[in-house]
Formats: sequence, C-alpha cells, structure tokens
Amino acid sequence: MTDRSRRKSINGHGDEQNEPISNTNLSNLENRRDNNYSNPLPAVRSRSFSEHSKDSINVQEPNETTSLLEGAREPSSHYSHFPSAREDDNAFSSSSRFRRHTWNPRQLKHLTAAFTEQIGRYKRRSGAYDEDKQAMLNEGGGIRVWYDDYTTIDWIHDYVKERVRIRKLHSIKGIRGWIVTSYDGLQGWVLVFLIGIVTACFAAGVDIAAEWGSDLKDGYCTESLRLNRNFCCANITNNGLDLNDDNKCDKWNSWSQAIRIHDESDAKLFDFFAYVVVALLFATGSALLVKYNSLYARPSSKSSARIENIEPKRKELKPYAAGSGIPEVKTILSGFVIRGFLGIRTLWIKAISLAMVVSAGMTLGKEGPFVHIACCIGNVLSRLFHKYNKNEGKRREILSASAAAGVSVAFAAPIGGVLFSLEEVSYYFPSKTLCRSFFCAIVAAVSLKLIDPFNTGKIVMFQVSYNKDWHVFEIVNFLILGVLGGLFGASLCKLILLYTKYIRNRTWLKQWPVVEVMMVVVITAAVNFGNKYTRMSNTELIFGLFSECTNEKEHDGLCDNSFNGMFEAFYLLGLALISKFLTCVITFGIRVPAGIFIPALLVGACFGRMLGININGDCVIPGVYAMVGAAASLAGVTRSTVSLTVIMFELTGTLTYVLPIMTAIMISKWVADGIIKHGIYDLLIDLGGHPYLDSKTEYDGANTTFTTTLDLCQRDLEVIDVNDLNTIGELKNKLKKLSTSGYSDAGFPIVDNKILVGYIASTELEHALSLAHGSDNLTRCYFKDENVIDKSANFTAYVNQAPLTISKNASLEIVLELFKKLGLRYVIVVDRGQYVGVINKKRLLIYLRQITGKDMNNTL
Amino acid sequence: MTDRSRRKSINGHGDEQNEPISNTNLSNLENRRDNNYSNPLPAVRSRSFSEHSKDSINVQEPNETTSLLEGAREPSSHYSHFPSAREDDNAFSSSSRFRRHTWNPRQLKHLTAAFTEQIGRYKRRSGAYDEDKQAMLNEGGGIRVWYDDYTTIDWIHDYVKERVRIRKLHSIKGIRGWIVTSYDGLQGWVLVFLIGIVTACFAAGVDIAAEWGSDLKDGYCTESLRLNRNFCCANITNNGLDLNDDNKCDKWNSWSQAIRIHDESDAKLFDFFAYVVVALLFATGSALLVKYNSLYARPSSKSSARIENIEPKRKELKPYAAGSGIPEVKTILSGFVIRGFLGIRTLWIKAISLAMVVSAGMTLGKEGPFVHIACCIGNVLSRLFHKYNKNEGKRREILSASAAAGVSVAFAAPIGGVLFSLEEVSYYFPSKTLCRSFFCAIVAAVSLKLIDPFNTGKIVMFQVSYNKDWHVFEIVNFLILGVLGGLFGASLCKLILLYTKYIRNRTWLKQWPVVEVMMVVVITAAVNFGNKYTRMSNTELIFGLFSECTNEKEHDGLCDNSFNGMFEAFYLLGLALISKFLTCVITFGIRVPAGIFIPALLVGACFGRMLGININGDCVIPGVYAMVGAAASLAGVTRSTVSLTVIMFELTGTLTYVLPIMTAIMISKWVADGIIKHGIYDLLIDLGGHPYLDSKTEYDGANTTFTTTLDLCQRDLEVIDVNDLNTIGELKNKLKKLSTSGYSDAGFPIVDNKILVGYIASTELEHALSLAHGSDNLTRCYFKDENVIDKSANFTAYVNQAPLTISKNASLEIVLELFKKLGLRYVIVVDRGQYVGVINKKRLLIYLRQITGKDMNNTL
Repeated sequence: MTDRSRRKSINGHGDEQNEPISNTNLSNLENRRDNNYSNPLPAVRSRSFSEHSKDSINVQEPNETTSLLEGAREPSSHYSHFPSAREDDNAFSSSSRFRRHTWNPRQLKHLTAAFTEQIGRYKRRSGAYDEDKQAMLNEGGGIRVWYDDYTTIDWIHDYVKERVRIRKLHSIKGIRGWIVTSYDGLQGWVLVFLIGIVTACFAAGVDIAAEWGSDLKDGYCTESLRLNRNFCCANITNNGLDLNDDNKCDKWNSWSQAIRIHDESDAKLFDFFAYVVVALLFATGSALLVKYNSLYARPSSKSSARIENIEPKRKELKPYAAGSGIPEVKTILSGFVIRGFLGIRTLWIKAISLAMVVSAGMTLGKEGPFVHIACCIGNVLSRLFHKYNKNEGKRREILSASAAAGVSVAFAAPIGGVLFSLEEVSYYFPSKTLCRSFFCAIVAAVSLKLIDPFNTGKIVMFQVSYNKDWHVFEIVNFLILGVLGGLFGASLCKLILLYTKYIRNRTWLKQWPVVEVMMVVVITAAVNFGNKYTRMSNTELIFGLFSECTNEKEHDGLCDNSFNGMFEAFYLLGLALISKFLTCVITFGIRVPAGIFIPALLVGACFGRMLGININGDCVIPGVYAMVGAAASLAGVTRSTVSLTVIMFELTGTLTYVLPIMTAIMISKWVADGIIKHGIYDLLIDLGGHPYLDSKTEYDGANTTFTTTLDLCQRDLEVIDVNDLNTIGELKNKLKKLSTSGYSDAGFPIVDNKILVGYIASTELEHALSLAHGSDNLTRCYFKDENVIDKSANFTAYVNQAPLTISKNASLEIVLELFKKLGLRYVIVVDRGQYVGVINKKRLLIYLRQITGKDMNNTL
Repeated sequence: MTDRSRRKSINGHGDEQNEPISNTNLSNLENRRDNNYSNPLPAVRSRSFSEHSKDSINVQEPNETTSLLEGAREPSSHYSHFPSAREDDNAFSSSSRFRRHTWNPRQLKHLTAAFTEQIGRYKRRSGAYDEDKQAMLNEGGGIRVWYDDYTTIDWIHDYVKERVRIRKLHSIKGIRGWIVTSYDGLQGWVLVFLIGIVTACFAAGVDIAAEWGSDLKDGYCTESLRLNRNFCCANITNNGLDLNDDNKCDKWNSWSQAIRIHDESDAKLFDFFAYVVVALLFATGSALLVKYNSLYARPSSKSSARIENIEPKRKELKPYAAGSGIPEVKTILSGFVIRGFLGIRTLWIKAISLAMVVSAGMTLGKEGPFVHIACCIGNVLSRLFHKYNKNEGKRREILSASAAAGVSVAFAAPIGGVLFSLEEVSYYFPSKTLCRSFFCAIVAAVSLKLIDPFNTGKIVMFQVSYNKDWHVFEIVNFLILGVLGGLFGASLCKLILLYTKYIRNRTWLKQWPVVEVMMVVVITAAVNFGNKYTRMSNTELIFGLFSECTNEKEHDGLCDNSFNGMFEAFYLLGLALISKFLTCVITFGIRVPAGIFIPALLVGACFGRMLGININGDCVIPGVYAMVGAAASLAGVTRSTVSLTVIMFELTGTLTYVLPIMTAIMISKWVADGIIKHGIYDLLIDLGGHPYLDSKTEYDGANTTFTTTLDLCQRDLEVIDVNDLNTIGELKNKLKKLSTSGYSDAGFPIVDNKILVGYIASTELEHALSLAHGSDNLTRCYFKDENVIDKSANFTAYVNQAPLTISKNASLEIVLELFKKLGLRYVIVVDRGQYVGVINKKRLLIYLRQITGKDMNNTL
C-alpha cells in the first residue's frame, strides 16, 4: 500500500478532529484568500494569530514559501511523516472542501507546494486549539498546537484554557453578558440532552434488529420477513398489540417447515443446520464489517509511538469497532488521544456489527459496545459546540456523561449507568459532570421508554416480583454464592487473559480473525442448539433463571418440583453453565463487538439457580439465588461494587434483596481479588498496552524498591540554553535527535545558565519552526523576550513559562500523585532552581508497568 | 474563668488525639523513667528519636531543663498559650495517668517545671506522629509534629507517610512478611466492620428511645413505664409480638386518664398541656445537655486563629453536639483538625440529646446527627489501630466510610449512604474507600436488621407498594412537582440563612440558646397539637402521605374520596405544610442536634400529596406524588442528585418510579440553583466560617478580576537564610513576629542566597527550638547539613527539603488546582529558582471567600 493510497483510505473516517464549519474556519479561510491576493507566491495560507495580538507576542507571519526540515524529509524517516499526518488530520475535515476551492493551479507546479499546504493547515490547526492566545500567554503556560494522535492531553492546560474562556464571558457586562453566559451554561445541558436521545435511538435500533435477527435463526414470519416472532404472532387488540407467548403460531415458520420437511428427525437436523448457518452468516458478516473498516492506529508523526510496550506498532490496522471498547474508552477518558476511535464510522460499524453478533447468539453482551457507541455519539455531537470541540479536557466530561447513557440504555439502568461511569469508566469526574451524567442517563432512559422498542411499555429487562423477604439463615447460602461468584468471575478473567495471551496471540488465529470468529460461532451455535436453556437467547435465559415460580410448568422446566424435573433442570443448567463459561472464554476478545456483562450474569445465574434448586424449600426462592449468583459472578469479573449493586436492582426492579446482593458482591470481590488482582477491564488495558495511569489503584511498589525521583527522571535530554545561538538548523537537529531517541514527545527544557526558565514541547517547537522565516538554517531563534534582538524567530509564545517543577529531593510518591491527580504530561526535576531532568508521563508509565508487570506475572 | 479551671474543664473530653496504651507509649514512658534516673534535674522526660536513628539525622537530645521563649511568655500574649494548648492536648490522653507516676515532687518547686513538662509532652507528641523518621527524611519532606487544633492537615505528607509504612511492610520477606502484610490489610476491614456494628447499636438505641419518648407526650403504659405504646398494646402470640394498630388499648393511659379527668374538653386541654410540657421537658433537657457539654473551640496555640473570617474567635465555647454536624464533618474530611468534635463525649451527648429532641416532636430529622454520631464512632474506634490513629489522612478515609454507615442506619439506605458520603460529605474518596464504605454500610444495615429495634423484621422506613406504573401524560405533573420542590427547597435554604444571619445572630437569642430552644419547642408543640396530621410523628406522617390507598378509611382521612373528605385533607395538609415549613426555619440551627432531611421530606410530601389529591383519578396514585414531591423538595435543599435518588428508593422500597423521581430531582435542582447558588450544607459551612476549600465547586471568579499568582502570594514573610547566623534568639524573635503578623501557621522559607532550598513550618520550628540546647539564645541553628559546624542545633530534620514550588508566571488556576487536588498547605512561589513568596491555604481561602462572599451577597 503506497503512502498515497493509505492516506486516501483514511480519508473520511478517522474523524476525531472533524470541525464543523464554524466562524473560525470561515475566517481562517478568508484570511487565506487575503494572503493569496497580497502574495503571489504559493503562500502559507493561514494565520496563527489575530492581528491585534501579533505585536504584543512577537510572532512572525511567514511570508515566503519554506520547506521545513528539508534535510530530514527522506520518506523512510519517521520524522518525515509529520506533514502527512497533518494532512490526514485534515483530510476528513469539512473545511477541506473549501480548501480545494482556494487552490491556485500554479501551486501544483511548485515542488514545495504540497508541503507548504500542510504547514498552512498545521498552522490553522494550531490556531484552532488555543484561540485566545493573548490570554493563554498571560497565564504563563504558552500556547499549544492540537494534540497529536497517540499522545496524552495536558489536563492543566485545558483546564486553564476553559477558565480563561469563562472569565472572558463573565467580563461581558449587562444583558448581553447575561445572555452569552446563559447560552454558554446551557450548551452542556443541550448537548447531553441530544446525546441521551440519539443514544436511545441507536439502542432501540440495535435492540429491534437483534431481536429480529435472533428469531431468524429459528425461522421466519410468513406474513412479512421484517417481523420478528413476537410481532408476527401478536394479535392486534384494542389495547394495542397483544403479544402472546403461545409457541404454536401459524404465521411463524421454522426453516424446516419452509422447505416442507415432515420427518421429525430430519426436520430437527435441518433446523439445527439452518440455525448454525444463519448464526455463521451473521457473525461472519459482522467480522468482515469490522475488519474492513479498521482504522490505522496512527502513531504520532514523530516517533513518539516507539516507546516499547506502551503503544501499538506503527501502521497497524486497528479494528476499532471490535471488542468491548471499555478499556479504550477508559484510556481516552484518562487523557489519551486515539483518533477515529470515537468517530462516526466507528459508531455505525459498531452498531451494525453488534446487532449482527447478538443475532448470532454468541456468548457476549452489549453493555460494553453500548458504552462505546454512546461515547462515539457524545464525541460526534460535541463537535456542535465550540467549547467542547476545542477543548479535549472538557470533551472528556461529555464522554463521561455519554458512558452513563450507554449503560442506561443497555440495561435500562439510569442510576447504575451514572455510577458505572463514575466507578469504572471515568477518570476525572467533577460534580458538574455527575449532574450532567445523571441528566443524560435520565433522558436516554425516558427516550427509550417512549420509543418502546419491544412494545411492552416496560424498560426493566428482567422484571421480577418476589413475594417473600429473606431469612437470616439464608445468609450462609448468600455467602457461598459470593465465594462461588468470586471463583467463577476470577477464573473467567484469568482464562480469558491466558487464552488471549498464549493461544490467540501466539497461533495462526492472530492472522485470521474472521476465521476465528467463524469457528467460535459454529462451536457456540452447535453447543447451544442441543440444550433447551442455551438455545434461547441469553436474555431470555437470564430472565427465566431470575424468575419466581408460580406454577410447575413455567420457565421451561425450571419450576418443576418433581425429583426428575429438578434433576433434569439441574443437569441441563450444569451443562449450560459449562458451555457458556467456556464459549465466553473463547469469544471474549474476538474481532467483533462483545461485552462481558451478559455472559458473566449468565454463568452466575446458572450456578445460583442450581444452588437454589438444590435447597428448594417453601421459604426459599431459587430465582433469588440466581440473581444473587449473577451479581456475585459479575462482581468477580469487573470488581465493581456500588454501581453493580444498583445495576442489579434496576435490571430486576426489586429492592427487597439489597442486603444479600451487597453481601455476595463484597465477598465475591474479596475472593476474586485474592485470585487475580485486577478486574477484566484493567487486565484488557494492560493486555492492549494502553497508556493508562490508573488514578484509583495504589502502586504499592511491592515488587520493587521504589527508586528515587532522581533515578526516574531523564537527565540526558537535550536542553535549549537561551544564551546559546539557537539557530533553526540546530533546533531541527535537536528535534531529529529527539525523534530517534525514543522519547520524542517529550520536548526541551529551556535553561538560562542552568537555571530552568521554561519548557517547549516538541510539537510546539516543530510548529514554531514551521512558522519561522525561510529555509535559512542560520537564523537565530529566541525563547525569551528579553533576549530578542532581531524579531525574525521569536518562539517565546510557545514556551511554557511556568512548567511544574519538583525538587530532586521530593518523594517519588509525590511525583506519582502529581501525575495521577493533576493529569500532567511532564514534570521537571530541579535542584535549587537548576535544571536536573524531566519525568514525562510515558516514562512514568513504563516504569510503573515494570512494577505491575512483575505483579501480573506473579498472579498468573 | 481562670486558665486553670478552663484547662480542667477540657480535661477528659476533647479527646481527638487520645492514644491507646500502645507499645510506643509504653516505651516512651520507660524512656522517660530512664531519663529521670540518669538526670537528677527536672528533665524533659521523653525522646523524639529512637536511638539508632539519632546519629544519622543529627538531632540532639536535650539534656538540661530549658525554658523556651521565656521573654515572650507574658500571659497576655497569644504566643504564651502554646504550652497550655499542648497540655490540653494531653490532658485527656490516657498516658497522663502514667505520667503522674513518674512525676518527681521536686519538680513542682521549680519555676520552669510545668513548662518543661509541656515541652516534654510536646516532644512525645511529635515523636508519635512521624515514627519512622529516617524513612520520612529520605523522602525529603522532613519530619513533622502533630497537627495543631484548627489547622489544616498535610495530605501529601500523610500520603507519603503511609506509602513509606507500606513499603516497609512489603520489604519483610517470607511467611512473616505475608502475615504482617495481611494483618495490615485486614485492619481497615475489621475497623469498618466494628464501626458498622457499633453504629447500628447506637442507631437502634436512639430509635427505641425516641419512639418511647414520642409516645410519652401522649400518655404512658400502665403495665410498665418502660414500654412504648406499640409494645404496651401488643399481644404476645406464638409468632412473637403481634403489634396491633387498634387505637383503643386498655393498658395505655393518656395523661388526662391518669389524673382521671372525665370531662372531654377538659381532658383535651389537659392532654394538650401535658403534650407541650413533656415536649418542653425533653427539648430543654436536650438543650441543657448540649450547652453544658460544650467544648472550647481552641484555636492553635499560636495565633493562627486570628485570620479574619476564617476561624471562630478564641476561647469560644462550641456546642459541638448541636446542629446537623455535616458541615463540620465535611470540613474535617477536607483536611481540617477540630479537636473534640469527633470525641467520645460528643458522641454520647449527641446520641442522648438527639433521642430527646426527636421525642419532643420538633421539626427536625436525624440523618445529619447520625452521620456525626457515626463519624464519632469511626474516629474513636480508629484509635484501636495504629495506622489510622497515627495518620490523619488515613483516618479521614475511615471517617468517610463511617458517614456512609450513618446514613445507612438513619434511613436503612446502605447504597444511598455510600453515595451520600461520596457526593455530599467526603473530600478524598479513593477506590478503596468506596469498597470500605460499601462494606461498612452493609454491616450497619445488616446489624440493624438483626437488632430489629421495632420488632417488625423490616428496615425499610416508608415501605410502599404501588400497583400501577406511571403514564406518559403524568410527566407534566412531575415537572410541576420538580419546580415546586425547587422553590420550596431553595426558599427553605434562604429563609434559614436569613433567619440565622439577621435574627438569631443579631438579637438576644444568640445569648440565650436554651431559651430559644424552649420557645421553639413550645411553638412547635402548640402548632402541631391542633392538626391531626402534624400531631403524629414526622415519620408516621411521611409514611401516611407516601402510602397508596386501598380503602377510604385508611391513613387518617388521606384516602377519603368524598368531596368533603378531600377538601378537609387538602386543607389540613396545607396547614401542615405551612406549619412544618415555618417551624423548620426557626428550628434548624438551634442548639440541639437537628437534621434537615425529614423536614424537607415532610414539606415535599405535603405539597405532593396535595397535588395528588387535586388530580385524583383512577390511574393516578396520590402517594406517588407525595414521594416525588418529597424527593424534589429534598433536592432543592441539598442539591444532591444520584445519592438522593437512591436514598428515595431505599426509603420506599420501590423502583417503579425511578424516572419520575429522577426527573423531578433534576428540575428541582435547576430551579433551586437559580434561586440560591448553594445547597444548605455549603451555606452552613460559609455561615460557620469553616475553612473549607470546596473541591467540587468551580470558582469562576465572576465577580472579580482574578489576580495573578504574584499578587496572591505573601512576599513580606520573614525568611531564613542558611548563610546567616541563625541564633536561637533570632529564630524565637522571628516566630514571635510571625505569631503577631496574622499568618502564624505559615512558616519560614529557607533560602541560600535567595535560592529556595526548603521550608520549615512554625510548629516544627517551635518544636526544634524546644529541643535545642539550653536557654543560650546565641547558639547558632543549622538548616542545611553541609553547613553544620557545631552540632548543637541542627534543625535539618525538620526542614521540608522538597517543598512544592510554582513559577511566578503560573496561572492562578493552576495554584487552585494544586490546593484542591493535592490538599496542599502551602506552595512556594519562585522565579527561576529564587524565592518570591508563599501562598498558604488560609490565604487562598480568604481570597476565595472574598470572591464567593460577594457572590453570596448577590444571591441574598
């Protein structure tokens, strides 16, 4: 694949930074036109600073065509990818349409034109991220360019940026000020309102499609293929549809009926065959959809990606729509940029392929994918509002609210969703985000109730109504369920981890993800077909297991009180338990959308009901045991506590058993923690090598002697001394060196006779260089206003004048706290004002991974 | 009141720092004995450092009696209170018993003896806080003495201290290491387990006493005065007690029956009289109990208290058992030290007086007091475990869990309790604390269920069972309820604030709190007696309002469907609404334990039910409207969202109405936020002048032009230059100056030719001076190991070698983030390594208060 075609293939989807046609874009555009008129050369057609601020901050407008870093631009150099990455960033920008219109045909003839174009766009992008430049400069942090792909965001910078913006709004007096401020305050609410509604629509769509698809495995509706079994067999009465549960329904044909096989065993065989084939078709379709819509996991233009173990290799195709998505969402929320992971294309592919795999009846759930889908919606819709589009930190608040909406529609659990987002997904969750998440979750749930995809008027998934309270003696059983849940949950985690690590990643399966999906679905379908409990859909089975018995015929034999009936139910549930458990292990992690909630609930409900059947008595409800077991099993897998408890209530609509469920969850968590230290999401984050600095885990340094701050910091970084003659050529060389050193996204401390005076990140320096005059490598660059003699290349505006520093004597724990709590990208180690070294987030992560990596190996 | 007697009155209660007789204490004691033997002078009888670490850190053991700061010891000087405060701290320490045994009678004759004694204890305290001194010194932060009363804790120091401790534990190898580590990990769980159980016992006790007391207003049991009405009238059947609801009960006498008044109107009058008198007796008793167990709000020994507006005036008696307690608990959890507020004495007084005021039937709730009681229990029990007793940061984690247990038992709402602690009370809530809170809340709820104080087998307070789902058209009504709830809630907040500010605090009421309580209770009782709804206890009324009607006779006319019946109910509920609302305004803030939850629920339930009665129809349940109204009203008062929703579910045991409740809460919060910006707890924190830096609120600087970091920092502080001849005399002078400057708890930056090299807090410097040799004011002190020539007074160990610094160019927003997220006490402003100034937390708070103070005046 050539560079060109690859660029093209990315065109139009990795749309994380897609900007709406806002005023800014248009004004930039106009500006470009102006430049074109005034300057007959194929000029850089944008500006970085508004006119009035130009003088005060001494940034030069480039006025001749330059080719930045010409020497370094061999195609093989990582560094050379910087402009192409820029182009990628903008290729899917809506403004590219306009760009074409302003193209001057003459430019095409110039060798450097394309490159200049990229610089121009680079500048526009830079201009776009920090708009109020003078204000940001006053804050001392310097102005910034857009975050690169696969880099961490600077929470503090984004926070300050937002505060500056708000301060400016508040400074507007009078009625206009009131209107502007109110409109600004309203935006967030409007946005989450929209997100809630759209999420509910997507959820309803997926639900309806999956219901229809699931039924298609068994047969079809003779009246219309578009109807699912329930609607096909429903009678239209005065009160709307009367969904009858009667298995005999004339309008519904099984596949064997369709081709008129009358021999019963033949019919059964054919039905089995049809069942497997339909499932296979769905799953394969889903897998292909995911595979051929993979996006390039594009590392930074510079080689920031090559830090071992932290980031995916370059140019790797990433099927962003596959898997649960929660580990990646967690990583993004912690302040990482993964372009395209939350884009429109991922959204559609994930939604469609999810409906298909759920139809295929595989052992997977939809909660993780729904969270991912909701976050895509949140990300896409946040482009409507300037303040979220132009601030990655603020945008993440909206994503947290979206995650809540995702769980809210997946399980009809609005409060559970908020708590799940808080406890499991989010990183930075201020009080305002809590309210917004709450609102977003309500809107999503109410919308889903109004859409009413199943025409039942209810959104509670597994509505149960137990008529008895629990007895004190039962607490022992609940404790047993807790222990079992912990065991099952933890072994599920462990087996999934081992299977992924040692089988999927080390055999031919790695190269043939679609074939793997096909194998898994055939195995699953074959196993499921034989057992009446597994043959029904996962949710039907869970509902049956949770239910209370009112008569013996109910729930496919689960309520049979005779010894034979009980034995059969017990035996079949045992088989179901084993088959679901094992298929879950081989399913979770394949290249289709797949959540873990439903499988974990299934396993837990099976062993819970089995225990319940065993100790069946007048005062014991087996359904309760299934429910408690399911909660315990899920706790063993995810290690959530509060959110899980609330989700269980909302799933079942009952509060009577709050104490048993809480107790079992707590016990299960303890047991599971004893077996394997982390929950499934953290394991997947580690497995995926995502640069996630967990603000919740305490790194206790059990397996290492924690080194000192001095040991951790990088002391061999190139520095920029303001007293040196920092020519453009020298700086380019420094950048090149940095890009090959493995810590390219770090940057350069700026010193004045060893005393630290600032810091400039490599992206900003690159950008500044691109703006500097000509190709004259001997031009001197300035990093300090006082020094400036000739104004040709004053980079002061890009310098962080107030980088956070820490004494070399400081405890490493303090460094860790700074990174965890403030979301820093780097901290500079000083010794009495003198520069010593730099600790950046990636270095810290590698280091922590070494510690916890050992840890993980120990637990395996 | 003389100094002596005041000291005595504090004796035995302000027991925040009361240490169990641990090994450390005993070894300290032995050491003191040793010192006495080897040194015939009335010596300082303790040591600060263990023998083996003495050499390495160059701290000198004092070996002669010194009188620190003799010159400065006029009684009128604030500074002179430092030793007496020290004595206070230890007066209630269990080790004082041992101390007396080691007293040498000769000492009493010496003029300086008492003072030396205090120094000695000061040293012991210091030794007690940072035990592993060498390790702490390695971390660069220096060692610390105990936090003074009314000062902020250093979260970072405590965090590092804990990590150091854990690292040490993990370094122990083999089976012993495993045991030690496991035991250490278990402590937290054992502790919260105990807290849960004890909290449940207290709650059960208060509940039973309050139930008995409430009934006593109406009459008494002829069988035994100890029985409440329910138990008195219950029939003992095979299934335990059969509590019958029959109003006619032979064994129960009204007061008029007791003195045999047969005339009906006379009897009614007498009953009214008795009702008021009993209520008055209970309330007065409670008020007196609270008043005469007030503790001295003791500001720091130094004059740290005199920063205007932040702290209570010196020597003020604080009735710690009064009020809700939540504002103070929030302040403590945010890292403030208020000695005695969570002590054993406060615990008992609060529990007893709470039972009494609830019996009196005043318009107040018990949720706030229960949170306070649970936190007292948590604080007292954490003394059992070294790691919590010796680390204020860790202790606060336990207090967060305790708060959850408090709500858990107050409302039988374990999950709601955890969320309330998370959303409303806690400041620092790591993931482990979430689990512990969860566990603590379960244990408390299960224990309460097992204790079963009301013999009903249920712990759900207002159990309802609605048989209908809600309809889409009702959403309009729920929106109206939301708006009404917001209006009522916000006006309740506003009126309480105005009443407290302009009436209670500015009239004679301020001087006569007990008289105020008596007036309020008489008014409340008189008003309540006239209305059948208000005459019943608050919880009975709420339960009635929430209930669904099954027949017309139920719930004292609330279910009457006739026009007259409905009109009467509507009218009486309107009266009840007004009377409860107004009595709540005058009640909340009086000097007895009082929560706001129940009054707010009451008001909301009244107007909700009124609306429900008005639109009574077949498909509408008035009880649901009461429930939704109650939730909305409470949301208007507290501005909680998630926790409140969950508490409402757990209170009523129903989940059907999740969406209406959530919607109403959200609307109410918006409406209320529009009327008055903060919830009741934040208002009370402001009113009480507590130094609370809200990590949740965003200070948007709307009413001010945010100054720069340089403006905010204190630049006129005295500094210590390591190159100067820092004699003891000079340092004492500096301390004295600091104490009179108004920023005494700040400390001294240590510089080396203007370059910042460290920081020493005034408490540490005082301590170090107290340890230094003799009264020779000319002895030179050292703050840097390299300089030390003569080892007489090397203070290096007390110097924070790695204070957090920030560039003078840094944004003020970053400074705020540092304080909010890291819990700093101070940050030092530097300019390229050179010292510029210091920002400490109190200065920041004063500054923020100026901003938000304006804000608050605007909203009033």
